[in-house]
Amino acid sequence: MGTIISTWRMSLEGVEKGKKEMLAGKSAGELLETVICEVENNPTFISVGYGGLPNEEMEVELDAAYMDGDTLDIGCAAAMKNIANPFLVAKRLSQEKVNCVLVGEGAEQFALKAGFEKKDMLTENAKQRYLEKIQEEVQPLKPYIGHDTIGCVALDHQGKIAAGTSTSGLFMKKKGRVGDSPLVGSGFYADSQIGGACATGLGEDLMKGCISYEIVRLMKEGMHPQAACEKAVNDLNASLIQRRKEAGDLSVIAVNKYGEYGAATNIEAFSFVAAQDEQEACVYRVMRDADGHCTHVKASQEWIDSHLVE
Amino acid sequence: MGTIISTWRMSLEGVEKGKKEMLAGKSAGELLETVICEVENNPTFISVGYGGLPNEEMEVELDAAYMDGDTLDIGCAAAMKNIANPFLVAKRLSQEKVNCVLVGEGAEQFALKAGFEKKDMLTENAKQRYLEKIQEEVQPLKPYIGHDTIGCVALDHQGKIAAGTSTSGLFMKKKGRVGDSPLVGSGFYADSQIGGACATGLGEDLMKGCISYEIVRLMKEGMHPQAACEKAVNDLNASLIQRRKEAGDLSVIAVNKYGEYGAATNIEAFSFVAAQDEQEACVYRVMRDADGHCTHVKASQEWIDSHLVE
Repeated sequence: MGTIISTWRMSLEGVEKGKKEMLAGKSAGELLETVICEVENNPTFISVGYGGLPNEEMEVELDAAYMDGDTLDIGCAAAMKNIANPFLVAKRLSQEKVNCVLVGEGAEQFALKAGFEKKDMLTENAKQRYLEKIQEEVQPLKPYIGHDTIGCVALDHQGKIAAGTSTSGLFMKKKGRVGDSPLVGSGFYADSQIGGACATGLGEDLMKGCISYEIVRLMKEGMHPQAACEKAVNDLNASLIQRRKEAGDLSVIAVNKYGEYGAATNIEAFSFVAAQDEQEACVYRVMRDADGHCTHVKASQEWIDSHLVE
Repeated sequence: MGTIISTWRMSLEGVEKGKKEMLAGKSAGELLETVICEVENNPTFISVGYGGLPNEEMEVELDAAYMDGDTLDIGCAAAMKNIANPFLVAKRLSQEKVNCVLVGEGAEQFALKAGFEKKDMLTENAKQRYLEKIQEEVQPLKPYIGHDTIGCVALDHQGKIAAGTSTSGLFMKKKGRVGDSPLVGSGFYADSQIGGACATGLGEDLMKGCISYEIVRLMKEGMHPQAACEKAVNDLNASLIQRRKEAGDLSVIAVNKYGEYGAATNIEAFSFVAAQDEQEACVYRVMRDADGHCTHVKASQEWIDSHLVE
C-alpha cells in the first residue's frame, strides 16, 4: 500500500497531486518532487522556497535534503541562494558518491552547472516583511518563531521509502545558519527496510536528539509509527526540559514499510497531510493530551481555508 | 575517572598535554580545545586546520563541531575559510541558543566578529600538493582517500562528557562540500548521562548510519563502548555492502560515563590515542579480525615516529 505523509496544511495541494501519481506507479522520489516543489513554487508559503523569508542580511538562503531508503543515498543543499527548487538540487546531489552535501556558494555553483533554474527567490512580500521587521526590532535582531519546514515521507508501490525536506529556515537567521532540515538523522531519515521520518520545529533542538533517525530506529524495534513518533518527541522534550529547563517546538511524521503512519508534536498547532491508496489527501490537526499522547483530528474545510499560512 | 580518546596518531601530542590538564581539573570542553587545537595548529597534519589540503578550487575549507554532553549544546562551523581554529569557533557557537550551526561565509563573518584570528590556512606545502595533483589527474578531479578527521571525546573529573571534531575534509572536494564531521549524530555525539562518540572515514558513508548517535544509543542500552563501537561499524558496513556492494572507511571511538573506552574500524590502518588518570597518553593500532572484532595493539615508538601523517 502506498502512503504519502507531509508536514503542515501547506502540503495539501502537493499531496493531492502526489496521490494521483502514486496510483499511477511513480517512485517515492518522484512523489516527493511533486509534493515538495508544489510548496517551494508557491509564494503564499513564507517558510519554503520561492517567497521564503530572508536572513538578517535580507538574503533568502534555502535548505533541502533527500534520502533514498533503498540505497541510503543522501543529498543535501544548505544555505543556498538563487535556485528555484532546492529540493531538486538535493535529490540530484544524492546521485553523487561523494560531495553529496554542499553548502553556500558551492551548492549554488553545482546547481547552476547542473542546469537548475536560476531565480531570485526574494518576493516583494518577503522583502516588505523584512523591512517591517527591522523597523520594529531593537538590535540585535532576534529570529522569530516562523520555521515551518516541509518534510515529506513517501512509500511507493514498489516498496521504496524516501524522505525529503525543504525550508527557508528561521526568519532573520544569521547568514549561513543551518537548522535540522538538511541534516541527516535530525531533519529526515529513510530506510525502505523499516520506514522513514521527517521533523519540523526548532532545528537547534530537534538536532540534539537526532529525532528522525531515532524514530526509524524505534520502528525497527517493531514500534508502530505513531508510538515511535510520540516516544521520540516525548523523550527529547523531557530530556531538553531536564537539562535546559525548556524545549523548542518538536513535530514529526513517519511512515513504516507497511504504509502505516504516525505524527506527534509538543505544540498546539501542528498539522499534517496524509494520503493512501484508499484515502484521499486529508489535513489532520494533531492534538496532544497531558500525557503526551497525540490524536489526529480531521481539519474542517473552514480551518483549512483559514490556515493557508501557519 | 577521567578519560581522553582521540582519533589517529596525530592526536598524541595534544592528548599528552590534555592529560595533564585533566589531572589539574580542567573541563571536558577545555581538554578538547587543547587536543584539537594542537592538531589544527600543526601544519604537519594535512587533513586538519592549518596545512589542511584544499578543495578543487585551491581553497582550504574547514569543518569543526563541538557538543556539550551536559546541556546537549551543539556548535558547528562548516566550509569555513581563513580562520585559525575552526574548533574554537564551533565551541563558541555552541553557546548560541539558535544559529549554532553556521556554514561558509556566514561562519567566517561570525568568527571575525567574535574576535577569532584571521589566518590564511593554505600552506606552501598544501599548495604544492594541489598543483601536483591537478597536473597528474585527468579531469574531472576525483577526491582522493585522505580524509582523516580529528575526533576527540573527553570525560572530565566533574563527570562531563564532550565530543569535538575538526577536519579539512576530502582533498580536492567540491567547493562547499561537507562530510560527517560537523553533522551531529554522524561525526560526533555526546551525552554526559551515557557517553560520547566520534567518527572518521568516508563522511558520505558514515552519515548514512548516524553512527556516532547509534554508538551512544547502544551504550545507553548498557553496551560497553568497545562492543558498541564494533556493533555500529559492523552493522553499518554490512548494510552498505548489502545495499551498495561497497562500504567506505568507517572508524570510530567512544567513551562512556564510567571512563571506559572503545574503538573500532572496517579498515587496516586505524589508530587512536587514549589517556586516563592512571594511563599515560598511548597510541594504539586497531586490529580487525575476520568476524569484525577489533583489538588494540600498543604502537611501537618506531611505528609512531614513522606515522606522523596517516
